[in-house]
Amino acid sequence: MLMPNLRPSPISPTVDFDADGVQHGFLRLPYSRDDSAWGSVMIPVCVIRNGEGPTALLTGGNHGDEYEGPLALYDLARTLDPKDVSGTVIIVPAMNYPAFRAGTRTSPIDKGNMNRSFPGRPDGTVTEKIADYFQRHLLPRADIVLDFHSGGRTLDFLPFCAAHVLPDKEQEQKAFAAVAAFSAPYSMRMIEIDTVGMYDTAAEEMGKVFVTTELGGGGTSRAETVRIARRGTLNVLRHAGIVSGAVEKTPTRWLDMPSGDCFSFAEDDGLIETMIDLGESVEAGQVVARIHSVGRTGGAPQEIRATMSGVLAARHFPGLVKAGDCAAVLAVVE
Amino acid sequence: MLMPNLRPSPISPTVDFDADGVQHGFLRLPYSRDDSAWGSVMIPVCVIRNGEGPTALLTGGNHGDEYEGPLALYDLARTLDPKDVSGTVIIVPAMNYPAFRAGTRTSPIDKGNMNRSFPGRPDGTVTEKIADYFQRHLLPRADIVLDFHSGGRTLDFLPFCAAHVLPDKEQEQKAFAAVAAFSAPYSMRMIEIDTVGMYDTAAEEMGKVFVTTELGGGGTSRAETVRIARRGTLNVLRHAGIVSGAVEKTPTRWLDMPSGDCFSFAEDDGLIETMIDLGESVEAGQVVARIHSVGRTGGAPQEIRATMSGVLAARHFPGLVKAGDCAAVLAVVE
Amino acid sequence: MLMPNLRPSPISPTVDFDADGVQHGFLRLPYSRDDSAWGSVMIPVCVIRNGEGPTALLTGGNHGDEYEGPLALYDLARTLDPKDVSGTVIIVPAMNYPAFRAGTRTSPIDKGNMNRSFPGRPDGTVTEKIADYFQRHLLPRADIVLDFHSGGRTLDFLPFCAAHVLPDKEQEQKAFAAVAAFSAPYSMRMIEIDTVGMYDTAAEEMGKVFVTTELGGGGTSRAETVRIARRGTLNVLRHAGIVSGAVEKTPTRWLDMPSGDCFSFAEDDGLIETMIDLGESVEAGQVVARIHSVGRTGGAPQEIRATMSGVLAARHFPGLVKAGDCAAVLAVVE
Amino acid sequence: MLMPNLRPSPISPTVDFDADGVQHGFLRLPYSRDDSAWGSVMIPVCVIRNGEGPTALLTGGNHGDEYEGPLALYDLARTLDPKDVSGTVIIVPAMNYPAFRAGTRTSPIDKGNMNRSFPGRPDGTVTEKIADYFQRHLLPRADIVLDFHSGGRTLDFLPFCAAHVLPDKEQEQKAFAAVAAFSAPYSMRMIEIDTVGMYDTAAEEMGKVFVTTELGGGGTSRAETVRIARRGTLNVLRHAGIVSGAVEKTPTRWLDMPSGDCFSFAEDDGLIETMIDLGESVEAGQVVARIHSVGRTGGAPQEIRATMSGVLAARHFPGLVKAGDCAAVLAVVE
Amino acid sequence: MLMPNLRPSPISPTVDFDADGVQHGFLRLPYSRDDSAWGSVMIPVCVIRNGEGPTALLTGGNHGDEYEGPLALYDLARTLDPKDVSGTVIIVPAMNYPAFRAGTRTSPIDKGNMNRSFPGRPDGTVTEKIADYFQRHLLPRADIVLDFHSGGRTLDFLPFCAAHVLPDKEQEQKAFAAVAAFSAPYSMRMIEIDTVGMYDTAAEEMGKVFVTTELGGGGTSRAETVRIARRGTLNVLRHAGIVSGAVEKTPTRWLDMPSGDCFSFAEDDGLIETMIDLGESVEAGQVVARIHSVGRTGGAPQEIRATMSGVLAARHFPGLVKAGDCAAVLAVVE
Amino acid sequence: MLMPNLRPSPISPTVDFDADGVQHGFLRLPYSRDDSAWGSVMIPVCVIRNGEGPTALLTGGNHGDEYEGPLALYDLARTLDPKDVSGTVIIVPAMNYPAFRAGTRTSPIDKGNMNRSFPGRPDGTVTEKIADYFQRHLLPRADIVLDFHSGGRTLDFLPFCAAHVLPDKEQEQKAFAAVAAFSAPYSMRMIEIDTVGMYDTAAEEMGKVFVTTELGGGGTSRAETVRIARRGTLNVLRHAGIVSGAVEKTPTRWLDMPSGDCFSFAEDDGLIETMIDLGESVEAGQVVARIHSVGRTGGAPQEIRATMSGVLAARHFPGLVKAGDCAAVLAVVE
Repeated sequence: MLMPNLRPSPISPTVDFDADGVQHGFLRLPYSRDDSAWGSVMIPVCVIRNGEGPTALLTGGNHGDEYEGPLALYDLARTLDPKDVSGTVIIVPAMNYPAFRAGTRTSPIDKGNMNRSFPGRPDGTVTEKIADYFQRHLLPRADIVLDFHSGGRTLDFLPFCAAHVLPDKEQEQKAFAAVAAFSAPYSMRMIEIDTVGMYDTAAEEMGKVFVTTELGGGGTSRAETVRIARRGTLNVLRHAGIVSGAVEKTPTRWLDMPSGDCFSFAEDDGLIETMIDLGESVEAGQVVARIHSVGRTGGAPQEIRATMSGVLAARHFPGLVKAGDCAAVLAVVE
Repeated sequence: MLMPNLRPSPISPTVDFDADGVQHGFLRLPYSRDDSAWGSVMIPVCVIRNGEGPTALLTGGNHGDEYEGPLALYDLARTLDPKDVSGTVIIVPAMNYPAFRAGTRTSPIDKGNMNRSFPGRPDGTVTEKIADYFQRHLLPRADIVLDFHSGGRTLDFLPFCAAHVLPDKEQEQKAFAAVAAFSAPYSMRMIEIDTVGMYDTAAEEMGKVFVTTELGGGGTSRAETVRIARRGTLNVLRHAGIVSGAVEKTPTRWLDMPSGDCFSFAEDDGLIETMIDLGESVEAGQVVARIHSVGRTGGAPQEIRATMSGVLAARHFPGLVKAGDCAAVLAVVE
Repeated sequence: MLMPNLRPSPISPTVDFDADGVQHGFLRLPYSRDDSAWGSVMIPVCVIRNGEGPTALLTGGNHGDEYEGPLALYDLARTLDPKDVSGTVIIVPAMNYPAFRAGTRTSPIDKGNMNRSFPGRPDGTVTEKIADYFQRHLLPRADIVLDFHSGGRTLDFLPFCAAHVLPDKEQEQKAFAAVAAFSAPYSMRMIEIDTVGMYDTAAEEMGKVFVTTELGGGGTSRAETVRIARRGTLNVLRHAGIVSGAVEKTPTRWLDMPSGDCFSFAEDDGLIETMIDLGESVEAGQVVARIHSVGRTGGAPQEIRATMSGVLAARHFPGLVKAGDCAAVLAVVE
Repeated sequence: MLMPNLRPSPISPTVDFDADGVQHGFLRLPYSRDDSAWGSVMIPVCVIRNGEGPTALLTGGNHGDEYEGPLALYDLARTLDPKDVSGTVIIVPAMNYPAFRAGTRTSPIDKGNMNRSFPGRPDGTVTEKIADYFQRHLLPRADIVLDFHSGGRTLDFLPFCAAHVLPDKEQEQKAFAAVAAFSAPYSMRMIEIDTVGMYDTAAEEMGKVFVTTELGGGGTSRAETVRIARRGTLNVLRHAGIVSGAVEKTPTRWLDMPSGDCFSFAEDDGLIETMIDLGESVEAGQVVARIHSVGRTGGAPQEIRATMSGVLAARHFPGLVKAGDCAAVLAVVE
Repeated sequence: MLMPNLRPSPISPTVDFDADGVQHGFLRLPYSRDDSAWGSVMIPVCVIRNGEGPTALLTGGNHGDEYEGPLALYDLARTLDPKDVSGTVIIVPAMNYPAFRAGTRTSPIDKGNMNRSFPGRPDGTVTEKIADYFQRHLLPRADIVLDFHSGGRTLDFLPFCAAHVLPDKEQEQKAFAAVAAFSAPYSMRMIEIDTVGMYDTAAEEMGKVFVTTELGGGGTSRAETVRIARRGTLNVLRHAGIVSGAVEKTPTRWLDMPSGDCFSFAEDDGLIETMIDLGESVEAGQVVARIHSVGRTGGAPQEIRATMSGVLAARHFPGLVKAGDCAAVLAVVE
Repeated sequence: MLMPNLRPSPISPTVDFDADGVQHGFLRLPYSRDDSAWGSVMIPVCVIRNGEGPTALLTGGNHGDEYEGPLALYDLARTLDPKDVSGTVIIVPAMNYPAFRAGTRTSPIDKGNMNRSFPGRPDGTVTEKIADYFQRHLLPRADIVLDFHSGGRTLDFLPFCAAHVLPDKEQEQKAFAAVAAFSAPYSMRMIEIDTVGMYDTAAEEMGKVFVTTELGGGGTSRAETVRIARRGTLNVLRHAGIVSGAVEKTPTRWLDMPSGDCFSFAEDDGLIETMIDLGESVEAGQVVARIHSVGRTGGAPQEIRATMSGVLAARHFPGLVKAGDCAAVLAVVE
């Protein structure tokens, strides 16, 4: 168990990351199971390379029920012309591919949350093996990393691009420059409380420029949010000098999501009623959401009140809520 | 099997539908099963009565994953003052209560789709027993019936109130007058192709004024759509003379959803990209949605083209689609 | 669908019901399914016959989670000497055999409750096919029928033997004479409210002497209740003149379980606390059970009060209760 | 419920059965469910027509875990040139398409066994709706019907083509002539005991020439059995004058599978050991199979002995067996 | 993986353990999953404090299907008046709350057996995170620890209070003094064979006075056993000087459960018949239980014989038994 | 976590491995779970010993869906006469007993693949606990180890006996001598690429003579392959001098399964058609298998071509295939 990283990854790619041109292939991960003794997980990967230059690593489906990223990236893989590229674009549109196929946040194989599985293990679960491959084989190749998120089936977000406040201010500045280039309607300055196991942290600790997003949610996508993802991807690649052409800038609103105080949790099961919609303003003390008990008519709902003033940046999505669910997230407009 | 309706309903209510005042109770339906030999389904019901006058039957949760109706009706049951009532308001906020508790369209007990189970059977499935109780005990009491729907977890709709084109034009006119009173942002004139088993049909065949809605979807609700539901409910009750006060009118846009041609179906499994958002216009022949294959990068998506011009009235909600799913519904603006 | 009974039963027995001696065999019921294209359900049956004389049909496992009957009957099948018999004893220790193997009230194959499936159908579900075989092949052979029940996994009963008040008073008198012969600690005089689908009704409508029991519950058995079942079975066979020897009489207490008022139902989910134990007395208005909400500490429990005076004859068994579950049953001592 | 067939089928085909040329399309069957409110089952269908002439209806996947038929029919649909056709070939390679996608005998939607669901119902289960469409729309179009079967996951068969002994001897003779044309290694003369619900019966009662097969089993196919299916299909079409060219005859051995006596059933659960392989001879009284108890070592196996002499025509496939499973089927060589 | 305890617990309490008065709140444990991306487990906790003095930590629901403890503790949390307290009472009525909600021994989330999960891990499973919080935050606050157990759904016990024979005889003496104060009908002197992972061991290794119980079982409670739990809790608190008033002593019988020889295990699946009831005496060599095979009638049951003399202290509860299940436990009366 | 092996195994055997004669017993492994608080896994074991001499350890059911080994070994345990033995034969016919009872490759308890679980852990999963017992208690007793495999439900193999190329050439020579003694139709010289966690490796690293097999597959057995297993077992025991009598030699064909190039993987889901049968020859570049898309008729199948010349040694078994499944394995005839 010492130095697990000395064991080679069980994943074998069917593409050559150093070859010019467009390659569509797989990361093949052996996965023996009851319904396939010698089966594998086949994670689609696309490499588009044109000579020397920086490398961008673009990922969607880190969580399997978030769709703007995969839509933008399957599309990019099909349409990006190597002639327009200087350097390398590595596209993995569905990072946690088993989760993505199932339409679930976590992997149906091992319940693995990809974004809590880094740095992974070559002899761990399927999710940990994928994380380990990114940690030891893909991240080291990258100069800039763009990882797409949305709220998934149980949360809904204002559409924003984000980066983290970092100890290395030069690295941080590069990341926020890339966020600005992305040009989402909102841009977020994030401080993570608990960074353990995140892909973000893995990339940042290697000194990469790391950019992420939240572009909606509910387990769907909209035409508008897909357009944001598609434009943002090209903008980041242009900004990095990998794709030719100028960044297509649009206005953005900068937000802060200060930790702790901006999260409200349900303390009861029931039928949830969010009292304001995403992007609307709320004053401290105002009722943000109500939870109605459903077993009988006539009871008073539980009220959840804002502990700060701000705009509604995210909310619980399904109509029913369970005690402990995050009901609402407020953010401060800069 | 002849004349099944002669058997009494197994459901016993704990409320007296003919008593004045506010009563919160249950429709108790015995349901013996492995985890409760002598168990029951307890469907919440509220009766608010004040003397003689017309009776409104208000229902939500006909499909268990549609939330505007239940939110408006649990709220109404808690807040409606009998002093403001002339007649009777019967509220069943979660008609298919087992489905509603599970957050699913159909009942987890018997997979029953309530809106395909009428007239029901007293000796049938749990869903059929509920339908039978409405058919023989609740619908006969009603003068006006308001049944809430939304798109549920797998469809998303423009918010509209609707009624059916009916053979009895006087009955039809009364229904559309109630739709107009509801004052949703959109109002729909519907022709059903297959009316077998619907609650709508059961009510209409008894000569009732029947009004229904689609107010969003995706298995959630928004503050705005809940406000529409709440206002619409009171408007319908005011319009019927059951609740005092004037109808609060707001502008509405009338739509037609002509049968057959306005529905587009997916022919492949994959990742769906709706090319326009709800309410946007589309010309015949335009690509409404694309389905991306996910097993490999690089393949061209299947395109679904509009077979008529109109606005996008409804769409498939989840990010993944299966062959046979309805991808998009267009409607014509009157 | 007309005259379904004209179709032959798909069940074929491997025993000859008219042959003398002891036979251990099966009722073989073809059951094609995914895991056995040409599979069958094999219901154990034992026939012990010695010349002419009356026929007793003894059954356990009508509900699959009730154990005193099967324990007494597997034992009897193994130990009853044909020399001690005059006539025929047919033993089916596990009538709903699929349910019995699963340890569940209803069949895991079709969720069929055997005691709500009579008269059955030869082309129906597996449970209905078994019921049909009893209806058309086994019940007609019987003079006296003894069917064992207990409370199963979700109810617990005082141990009693019972028969129904019947329109044919001679038939009723014979049944209560058999109940008295059984000599359980308690004996019950029952009026059924809803007799549809019951094995009891099927037997009684054919004019058979029908005796049943409730001998405990909770999905277990105790040494004492098994001894009651074993002694009661022999007593009934002796009383019927089928087994030689005198009835072994012990004292019994006669009870009435008047319909409706003696049942209390839970209206909330929670942690149930029965305030008195089985056989203890309660006055009308006294708290019989409390339901504690578990999501928070500090809330007052819901109280269930007795609506009549009597002894606690049955109660909800599991520690958790769901709204609609029968919490307690009171009975009046004669 | 009277005259259910007067209701129209809910299935709409996307092909025109009367148009010349090759069409690849679907039978679209609306199927509303929790994960798709307005979903459908899309059953692939191919029509290859060239002018007037007889119509052949070719089906595989009647049971979803039998593969020789689907392999031959997807291949035929892709390769058959209309220029070689006189008349019409309708190909449904996976009749119970939901079962076929799941790789199971019966439908995962409703557990429907397609071959026990005829004549079906337009308002029944998904499986019954498909049966009804064949009953009222496809079978009436056909002159000759070829329906492929194998043993599926739980049985293994000698490869044979078969027809039924029929009351109409001319119809019977035509069917056996088609069996002979098929040229499987074995040919079977079958008498069905229970014909209720079979597709075979539905076709034969309409006077169609009906031919079926058993071509192996175990839930797989072999190169050899697929070649038999492919050659047999063309042979039957040539024999019927629909495809040009001469029947490619190969030797066959005729078998009889007399009812009842040739089937052996397991009476115990355990580990099964078939003592001879398919096609090998056995004498009456010989041990055909043994069932080893697995809970302990040291116990004697249960022996299953042949009740007649013959060859082993079919056997239980999985290594474990359950009481009631068919262990072996013997046939007599003509 | 070194020094995992240096990571902070992810659990945040909503109560202040050092504040006077009564507080009802939660231990909130973040738990991200498919049906709630930002969800939490909310474990109810109650703190009742009145100035300086010793601290008692009272827990139920260590196993989720044991009910006397939770019933006594939800009740105590609701009714204990801080004026009667000197020091602090911390009440967690359902320690493995996810298991308790499911009514199962182990957690439905991770199958964690709480009493085999100590000392836990802050980055482990949900069950390990709860254990870690008790290990590092709650146990250190306690002077005396009372942890309630019963047999759960699959075992039934004589009602006893117990403590362990310990190396530190002073600590042991204090624990048995508390057991005597509890005043259950039986009191047990226990030697654990395998103490790895137990809450008991964690508390004892910190030098705490640790007292536990077994108060019945079968997944239910009885009025009598709940009264024992309630009285015992107050007695222990009075004995510890935390609650005012005198210990209410009742007679108890002391038992020893010597390891190994007193346990009998089933070697076959089948229908179990316990030949004596709890508390009855048995001689070495006597048949304690029989296991009847259910696949056929007529077979002899397997007999389980006592390997020592004593009373039946515990037994397998469900009517069916599996090979390997503990069938019976004998104890010696002191 | 350091030196986990210092903890004793939780498994207790009911046999004495050092006693002469035949013993049928169990390896009892405590396994607490929701449906049996004090349950165990009971793994059948048989010891046949006659004085001093070498020890053979014979195992089947390492994977639970492979049947030739268990059939030969339950039979041997029942029939081997200690008088014919010199030394000790330890037989565990179903090593991963939970998997074997479920008929699955891996354990239904923990999804453990026994052959990837060595050296196991005494405090790990059930599968790891079994592995640990073999590692520390059974393997050390053995001189020669014979472990049976077949393809299981998802693969099918040519019948062969095999050993590994080893660094210790004397050990290797002894293993191949035992392979030759086994006398399967084929014999394989294997180089494992990844030996981590294998039982094979555990045995070989202790210096044992280790022999294994692949004797068919598909989750069934045939009379012929069982005869091969039975004869091979006796041959190996005779060869080792443990059973008296001469080795019964039959011809064998030696094969090499060179790593990497001989495996072909599917890149698409679909209906698989293997173009040649087991044992048939193929040239490099030839189509070995085709994968037909099933969603529509008319599409071209994906072709899988041989990357080397050889015979088909193994193939995917089920009729449907998933992307990533091993489609075919080629071997070179020596």
